[in-house]
Amino acid sequence: MTKTTIAKWDVFEAAFNGPSSGNPFIDVDFEAVFSQKSRTVRVPGFYDGEGIYKVRFMPDNEGEWHYATRSSATELDGHSGVFAAGPAQPDVHGPVHVANRFHFAYADGTPYLAFGTTCYAWTHQPLDLQAQTLDTLKQARFNKLRMGVFPKDYPFNINEPLHDVYERDAEGELDFDRPNPESFRHFENQVKALGALGIEADIIIFHPYDRWGYCDMSAEQDFRYVAYLTARLAAYRNVWWSLANEYDFLLDTKPMAQWDRYFQIIEENDPYHHLKSIHNGDVNANYDHRRPWVSHVCIQNWDVKRTQEWREAYGKPVVNDEPEYEGNIMLSWGNISAQELVHRYWITLLRGGYAGHGETFMHPQDILWWAKGGTLQGEAWQRIGFLRDLLEQDAKEGLTPIGREANWPWSRVSGATDGDVTYIYLGEHQPVIWAPGLPVEAGDYDVDIIDTWEMTVTPAKIVDAPANHPTRHGAMLRPRRPDAAFAVELPGKPHLAIRVRPRR
Amino acid sequence: MTKTTIAKWDVFEAAFNGPSSGNPFIDVDFEAVFSQKSRTVRVPGFYDGEGIYKVRFMPDNEGEWHYATRSSATELDGHSGVFAAGPAQPDVHGPVHVANRFHFAYADGTPYLAFGTTCYAWTHQPLDLQAQTLDTLKQARFNKLRMGVFPKDYPFNINEPLHDVYERDAEGELDFDRPNPESFRHFENQVKALGALGIEADIIIFHPYDRWGYCDMSAEQDFRYVAYLTARLAAYRNVWWSLANEYDFLLDTKPMAQWDRYFQIIEENDPYHHLKSIHNGDVNANYDHRRPWVSHVCIQNWDVKRTQEWREAYGKPVVNDEPEYEGNIMLSWGNISAQELVHRYWITLLRGGYAGHGETFMHPQDILWWAKGGTLQGEAWQRIGFLRDLLEQDAKEGLTPIGREANWPWSRVSGATDGDVTYIYLGEHQPVIWAPGLPVEAGDYDVDIIDTWEMTVTPAKIVDAPANHPTRHGAMLRPRRPDAAFAVELPGKPHLAIRVRPRR
Repeated sequence: MTKTTIAKWDVFEAAFNGPSSGNPFIDVDFEAVFSQKSRTVRVPGFYDGEGIYKVRFMPDNEGEWHYATRSSATELDGHSGVFAAGPAQPDVHGPVHVANRFHFAYADGTPYLAFGTTCYAWTHQPLDLQAQTLDTLKQARFNKLRMGVFPKDYPFNINEPLHDVYERDAEGELDFDRPNPESFRHFENQVKALGALGIEADIIIFHPYDRWGYCDMSAEQDFRYVAYLTARLAAYRNVWWSLANEYDFLLDTKPMAQWDRYFQIIEENDPYHHLKSIHNGDVNANYDHRRPWVSHVCIQNWDVKRTQEWREAYGKPVVNDEPEYEGNIMLSWGNISAQELVHRYWITLLRGGYAGHGETFMHPQDILWWAKGGTLQGEAWQRIGFLRDLLEQDAKEGLTPIGREANWPWSRVSGATDGDVTYIYLGEHQPVIWAPGLPVEAGDYDVDIIDTWEMTVTPAKIVDAPANHPTRHGAMLRPRRPDAAFAVELPGKPHLAIRVRPRR
Repeated sequence: MTKTTIAKWDVFEAAFNGPSSGNPFIDVDFEAVFSQKSRTVRVPGFYDGEGIYKVRFMPDNEGEWHYATRSSATELDGHSGVFAAGPAQPDVHGPVHVANRFHFAYADGTPYLAFGTTCYAWTHQPLDLQAQTLDTLKQARFNKLRMGVFPKDYPFNINEPLHDVYERDAEGELDFDRPNPESFRHFENQVKALGALGIEADIIIFHPYDRWGYCDMSAEQDFRYVAYLTARLAAYRNVWWSLANEYDFLLDTKPMAQWDRYFQIIEENDPYHHLKSIHNGDVNANYDHRRPWVSHVCIQNWDVKRTQEWREAYGKPVVNDEPEYEGNIMLSWGNISAQELVHRYWITLLRGGYAGHGETFMHPQDILWWAKGGTLQGEAWQRIGFLRDLLEQDAKEGLTPIGREANWPWSRVSGATDGDVTYIYLGEHQPVIWAPGLPVEAGDYDVDIIDTWEMTVTPAKIVDAPANHPTRHGAMLRPRRPDAAFAVELPGKPHLAIRVRPRR
């Protein structure tokens, strides 16, 4: 018999027949232990309906893996097998983890710069629209997608979902003790489709915009739901766990301690330690992101010049997934201009965080990208792609803000370094000459002016740095900034950036 | 003999010969008491050089005023006289005071909406440049000017001042015990010239940008300087006392308690209670503006969406005199675009504060408006004038922010009411339909769309307000905003405002 071979970081799946009577979702414990020599990895299995039980495993190391099942049901207990893990597929770098404290990298060490977008309920739309969404994502340069497991009830979102997430009983009521495997199979196929495009699936487990009753499940039902979801999906390398969109609007049915428990259940069931976060609604309702189960800070906040503050408060990567969306709807989180969103991206990135994209343009059929996907109507996404391409050219450790401690001028303009490369984003500032943050040591540098809107990169004209003015008498002198070795001339218009690279 | 007649709120001046030996600035006490029936007003006099002592008085009531002098010098003691105060000159409304807690009004009750600009050292420039500055101010719509008594030493400000503010001794050193009357006469003539243009003189008493030694005067010299300045200038109706530009950069030579004492000395010598403020340098170094001698909050801070926070912290009018300047110099407080400054004005005003203007464009002769005056190069000043004209059309009690308590949407967009008129500024937001903040009661309204950059006012298209979405299940519902009686259509571009007025 030929031994199955699975590429490293792909999904190995084994299926077994087991009991279908009673409620297999609740009644049957089923798991497997995967091993290489003395190393063992416990992996929960799940019931997939019609008497079929499955276990999925993502090998993170090449070579032969053995597994053995354990179950409260005798038919499922004591199965064993073996498979081989081969080299990773081309362009597959493994799951993303935190790297360099404030940044991310794939398992193989390749830097991952998060450039996400948002289609909350895209997997609940008609299939042709879902295909269009994937086509659009193929063209754009986003590498993360925020998406919910549950459908969405909200302005512009009044259609029925493609699938019920739970099965219906004889009376047609949702039975929150019986997940609907068809719904989950579809969801995980779309997670896989995103993976094939190199896009991380930032999976939103709970959200408050509901008319079906998903928000009102009991604590026990919630806990089982989180465990089931984790068992089904953790083996997909591009999974991120986002506990909620706007958890604070759910606190009446899901009190705070429950949120901590959701995190723990994921930790109990996800052997790969995928990224975990939780997203606030009110800007003053941030979860305590210092808690150990939170891998990175996921927030919404339009006030992006505060990015360093969040880095410092939590000591983790900051992903501001909703710095308001490009659009024109009445809701003020969804109607900023493309220019403004691009501006907020640059500010966020050059203050050491990551930003998220969304589009909320009025549409005759209510197909708004932020919830349903479809096509992109706006003008920000190209500029965000340009920014990603630009930063990836030199990505090394991630962007560290310049002058994090200093108040001036880095409270007003934004600057960061990544290794020996320096970026300065001037934003609403339009100097005709600039020196702060440029190299102190003379040397050979490639210095470029970047027009963040026109997406051009132009060699800068280098000029002498202006001399410091003599000491002000009587004034308390703040620490003198080191003089720059040179200055650059600029055209005196807003939304420009400067990049300095040592000539290589 | 014909009795002198002075218009109400103009300056009555009486001069007397007195001792010129020793140091009359220090040696001689001289004051007068002005009275109407039992009401008396003590007014300090001052030495004007060459044996001449003067006292100035601004009558705030029509009718006959008597005065009598008191002095430690017998030649100056016991003089008395009488003059008549007639009606105020046309367009003279008296000095500006705080009104309605967060706002200002002239003494006759006319609302005063502060629309200031900044020419720190304009009175120390060549006379033809000063004339040009006044010409420019005549064309613009600013009604306040920040200006220093002392000259300025700073980048772009390396020229010698028109006058020494103190006399020089035989060795050519400045004698900080002897003010130079010529310098003060010139300064007060320019204050008067501004008054004739309807412009308040926001007089900056100390600042740190000095190479002559003004920053290093002793505490006693400072106290005498403040008293002398007050005695000379308080009778000009358009005087505001600004203790400092950036007092916190002077704390090494002028400790905190000294600043409190300056305020007290002004209170001892200014019988008219002109407005008094003190301006920070570092954004985290606000003076405690709650102190009783501070009439209004004068700050610099680019983060204008925080305006309500400052109103609430101090309970006084907020004048953000430096929300960064329009310009293109390297210093980041002086290089924002015109669009951005106009944007910050609208945000500040519609959050219940007042903003200040400045221009810092590179100039071949270093004539930057912010310090030297001259002509305006930028594009913001016209739009600021447009905003002033617009608000003055309906000015009544001053602008009160909408939804001061609420987080949303008024943290993102800006709105305010003045009496029965509502203004909403959408800024970087570009909805195609808008309802929040519009009237809850149906009625006859004039609703206009204002293009803040193009300076146009266009009647809005009124449409039905979108229905509220049904209650979100499981979500904590924040208090429901009242539904608006209608909505307006908008062209879907940024930097628009909406004005709603009851049809009259």
